[in-house]
Amino acid sequence: MSEEPVMDVAHLGHLELLTAKPEESLRFFVDVMGMTKSGQSGDSVYLRAFDDYERYSLQLTASRTSGLGHAAFRARSPQALRRRVQAIETSGAGIGWQDNEFGHGPAYRFHDPDGHVVELYYETQWYEAPPPLRPALKNQAQRFPARGVNVRRLDHFNCLAVDVRANREFFETYLGFRLTEQIVLDSGEEAGMWLTATNKSYDFAYTKEAHGVKGRFHHITYALDSREDVLRAADIFLEAGVPIETGPHKHAVQQTFFLYVFEPGGHRVEVANAGARLVLAPDWKPIRWSETERKKGQAWGLKTIESFHTHGTPPLPDQLEDGEDDVTKQIAS
Amino acid sequence: MSEEPVMDVAHLGHLELLTAKPEESLRFFVDVMGMTKSGQSGDSVYLRAFDDYERYSLQLTASRTSGLGHAAFRARSPQALRRRVQAIETSGAGIGWQDNEFGHGPAYRFHDPDGHVVELYYETQWYEAPPPLRPALKNQAQRFPARGVNVRRLDHFNCLAVDVRANREFFETYLGFRLTEQIVLDSGEEAGMWLTATNKSYDFAYTKEAHGVKGRFHHITYALDSREDVLRAADIFLEAGVPIETGPHKHAVQQTFFLYVFEPGGHRVEVANAGARLVLAPDWKPIRWSETERKKGQAWGLKTIESFHTHGTPPLPDQLEDGEDDVTKQIAS
Amino acid sequence: MSEEPVMDVAHLGHLELLTAKPEESLRFFVDVMGMTKSGQSGDSVYLRAFDDYERYSLQLTASRTSGLGHAAFRARSPQALRRRVQAIETSGAGIGWQDNEFGHGPAYRFHDPDGHVVELYYETQWYEAPPPLRPALKNQAQRFPARGVNVRRLDHFNCLAVDVRANREFFETYLGFRLTEQIVLDSGEEAGMWLTATNKSYDFAYTKEAHGVKGRFHHITYALDSREDVLRAADIFLEAGVPIETGPHKHAVQQTFFLYVFEPGGHRVEVANAGARLVLAPDWKPIRWSETERKKGQAWGLKTIESFHTHGTPPLPDQLEDGEDDVTKQIAS
Amino acid sequence: MSEEPVMDVAHLGHLELLTAKPEESLRFFVDVMGMTKSGQSGDSVYLRAFDDYERYSLQLTASRTSGLGHAAFRARSPQALRRRVQAIETSGAGIGWQDNEFGHGPAYRFHDPDGHVVELYYETQWYEAPPPLRPALKNQAQRFPARGVNVRRLDHFNCLAVDVRANREFFETYLGFRLTEQIVLDSGEEAGMWLTATNKSYDFAYTKEAHGVKGRFHHITYALDSREDVLRAADIFLEAGVPIETGPHKHAVQQTFFLYVFEPGGHRVEVANAGARLVLAPDWKPIRWSETERKKGQAWGLKTIESFHTHGTPPLPDQLEDGEDDVTKQIAS
Repeated sequence: MSEEPVMDVAHLGHLELLTAKPEESLRFFVDVMGMTKSGQSGDSVYLRAFDDYERYSLQLTASRTSGLGHAAFRARSPQALRRRVQAIETSGAGIGWQDNEFGHGPAYRFHDPDGHVVELYYETQWYEAPPPLRPALKNQAQRFPARGVNVRRLDHFNCLAVDVRANREFFETYLGFRLTEQIVLDSGEEAGMWLTATNKSYDFAYTKEAHGVKGRFHHITYALDSREDVLRAADIFLEAGVPIETGPHKHAVQQTFFLYVFEPGGHRVEVANAGARLVLAPDWKPIRWSETERKKGQAWGLKTIESFHTHGTPPLPDQLEDGEDDVTKQIAS
Repeated sequence: MSEEPVMDVAHLGHLELLTAKPEESLRFFVDVMGMTKSGQSGDSVYLRAFDDYERYSLQLTASRTSGLGHAAFRARSPQALRRRVQAIETSGAGIGWQDNEFGHGPAYRFHDPDGHVVELYYETQWYEAPPPLRPALKNQAQRFPARGVNVRRLDHFNCLAVDVRANREFFETYLGFRLTEQIVLDSGEEAGMWLTATNKSYDFAYTKEAHGVKGRFHHITYALDSREDVLRAADIFLEAGVPIETGPHKHAVQQTFFLYVFEPGGHRVEVANAGARLVLAPDWKPIRWSETERKKGQAWGLKTIESFHTHGTPPLPDQLEDGEDDVTKQIAS
Repeated sequence: MSEEPVMDVAHLGHLELLTAKPEESLRFFVDVMGMTKSGQSGDSVYLRAFDDYERYSLQLTASRTSGLGHAAFRARSPQALRRRVQAIETSGAGIGWQDNEFGHGPAYRFHDPDGHVVELYYETQWYEAPPPLRPALKNQAQRFPARGVNVRRLDHFNCLAVDVRANREFFETYLGFRLTEQIVLDSGEEAGMWLTATNKSYDFAYTKEAHGVKGRFHHITYALDSREDVLRAADIFLEAGVPIETGPHKHAVQQTFFLYVFEPGGHRVEVANAGARLVLAPDWKPIRWSETERKKGQAWGLKTIESFHTHGTPPLPDQLEDGEDDVTKQIAS
Repeated sequence: MSEEPVMDVAHLGHLELLTAKPEESLRFFVDVMGMTKSGQSGDSVYLRAFDDYERYSLQLTASRTSGLGHAAFRARSPQALRRRVQAIETSGAGIGWQDNEFGHGPAYRFHDPDGHVVELYYETQWYEAPPPLRPALKNQAQRFPARGVNVRRLDHFNCLAVDVRANREFFETYLGFRLTEQIVLDSGEEAGMWLTATNKSYDFAYTKEAHGVKGRFHHITYALDSREDVLRAADIFLEAGVPIETGPHKHAVQQTFFLYVFEPGGHRVEVANAGARLVLAPDWKPIRWSETERKKGQAWGLKTIESFHTHGTPPLPDQLEDGEDDVTKQIAS
């Protein structure tokens, strides 16, 4: 009889993104994405989608450059948090406890094998909408904003990693995430992995970093209620002058209906819809995509855009600038 | 420190519905709902939605009358199954093991306090699509049928219960289900409860039986990918002469976008979409709806139709026939 | 060989609605409907949907009570305008020329047989969006607002009439409108008629006034791009505290997907979508709905709500107040 | 005072497409597009979308190669037909009357300047659905098929032309079509034109033929009710193994939401949705797109795929085969 699945991580909680253009980034997330500012502290502002149940899902921190500050997952219980911390400590990847973070209780931080900072916490502040933002239906966290793209909730994120396999094994072994889909090159090298702790088919993904630079970030994704909402988002991004990278279209991997844009700080931001697709099987058999299959492009034939393989945040260091993508140059100008 | 949540039930697996019109019921589910027949055995045929990963999600059994044969949940692991069986055995509600069911391994059956038969199993047969039904994308269980309503997957079911509270406590205590929403009358009596074992906001619901008759069934629900799909389903049901009970509209409770129809055997069948709404919080605070709130009707003001409170399957016994709803009479005629 | 169709009316141009709550009505149309104020003059403000090509489609005039100020159609050419004016003059219904209206050239006004004021004009002011409202695509009149319901364009209106048949014949005979659908009671009395001058299946409708009071108004309708947009509008109206009368649902007549709400001034306002349905046949055979057919309710079975037959603007005179609908009382309170 | 618009053409009626794979083409249109075969005569089968009011909108004729047999417009009245025939006769482009065509009365045929055969007719056969295909709502031509892509009605077609300007002037001058949008190169040469006789923003388009070969066809388009329907169509084409050329995406020109595939006979087939966009202005000011603007790609940034500029039907003659696109080779293989 095989081991039981570890159910200790409940869900993705929030991301901290760094931005050298804090005002412009804030306006993008509030005015265009339709998010709500729900806090401010030091160099950070805190933002939420209308149906995030916690106080925030995005911490935007003024910084010299762009990139992921940290990613945070909520544990299922205090006991589950304690178990995962013990496991991570045995891995040698632990950083230690953060006690004074905004909006949630003590968080244990660690590095993934690629050097991204990740944290795990349990205690959290539930969002209490002020009267003008109270929803008509009390099973919703906040009033539907009816402004811009109206994102519903944080969905997932995607990091770049030099060694995808090492990161997959780390999150499987120490955190209990389950692999649902992956890309394996002809050489046997893993080029992408999609992991979940929930019934969503993925809570985050790691894809191959092309330049050998560690710690980079690929994109953050908010969920919309329908594919039509994603199409309407494209109209709205176009009108707002937001650079659209690619989409709307349907990924072959995970079948997500996607649209990628760039926020003023340089991060790729996705709005997406999964339809009614969920991974309910507790023993889901991971889908493996080959190099040949990936070359077919997306579900309906769209070729994957070059910048999707090259652009990440922060930008590449100077000595690699010849490898830099046009997107970074365009946004930087 | 409070007890940890029990994560032993993975998801709703299938329902067995009895029908006195097996041929008409089968045609409804295949031709109108767009489901696929994936097996036959004895008096039963087995049916699946295109993205159910198991062999089937609906067992349709020829019978003298209508009603729920049994409901089946899949356990998360062999160990989880064993634990739940032990717990149920202490409750005195156990029936025993069923070893030869179609498409899955040994199942432990029990009665809920209202007398419905429920079972729990772990081993299962994954659906293998024959060549003409193989999907273009290998992360999908079966080719999109492009026929009728095209339901994606089994979503939930709703039973009637004379004592809603007793049933809620039973499923919470012995199975580990979590309450997400409920209706509590001014008298303190519970009139409805929505329970989940997943990130869906409910996997089943029990609502008050108005005539004091135990073991009755309210509806089965299949998920569609969008609200637009539900609207299109209404067009298709209309064209197919399927009686529409109510909808499409949005429930206040759970915010499900719903449409209810009656299949030829008399069961209420729902097609629904939840948008991107999920319950991710491991410590979700149940939403309690009062009698007054429920009288407001559905989310956008539609009054709840009378038959929704009265019609169930099987029909009421003779001595209660005056209480019988018009729907049953209409379908029977 | 039968007579050729008269093609002299190009389309519905705008409506003037009277409101005793001008500030609240303005806020409703701007903040909730997502319209833009494009002018002001005297007691009137002028409003437009984002893809109306003329300067405005709604004139909102502060007044003692509610109701239709006037309805305006644009002629196809100066010659067409002249021909229609000559025809109307022979009918004895003419009022005369209005030379100084906001946003368009000389308009010829007349009374329909029920006493509503209608006008016909040709010269008009095309909307020129100021820089912040310029669209990204130059084949669109104005930037998509991404605010509230985001109505695209004026679609149609509905008046009440004591004698529907007399009004139908008037608009057919003197203006060249074509009948596409109608309701004829068992008595032979006409209870509703839908007329068009375009490829839309109707540009306006007249339905039976139940109290014998002339000149009343039933609703104004703005078009949305999809049924999903109408559903989203319902969410937004709910959040904004706008009273929803009925819908979203699909009319059997014309198959319009509809949602009716009340604006603060008391008028019924509809947002609607027709899908890709158009009436292209130049010799369309009018669809006649009988009393029995209408009693079936709307397309998917929704019963027509009582207020839909009784509520109009302005409210009924005092001596008829017993016949008044709850809606008027509710809005007035 | 300028001349009045000519309103003599009512709408696009049908297209005749030639196919060297008549059985496969028929199966594509019936099984995948969801159309209905409504007639057969000689080498032709006749097909209809579910809400086409005439007997058919597509004549599929077995032939040695692919291409446009003819395009047919319905006149607004017998008088209008006579007037247009007189006008065309003065142009010297007339071919003459066809008296025995399937499903409609006498048609006058002529060549456009590029050599395509076009006809104009008035008398027509309205579709009478046989009992199993009768719709639930009598204002719809036929039951919604609930099979495949479920196209609603013929929308438009696109021909290639060596001299776009000459063709535009011909259709404007002799038929009364109105230009709504066009592409004009920096050289002053016209590279594309969109003409309408209705409130649809175009009934057909002609775009520049790149190889100097006359009489070629670009695509036929059927309308779907929503953008979501177009997305679903992409899923269905993928499952059916139908080659997808490009889309779904939104054109900058006309803002049509499009999806292009190839039917077995080699023709490009589009399914599209226009939202609620209509051209209502009788004096619409044509939108002119420059070479620079077109290089930006489609509305949301998708680059126009190369084959869109090169593939047409019939295939290029042998001596030009080096200029042939991969699509033709792929379909031919």
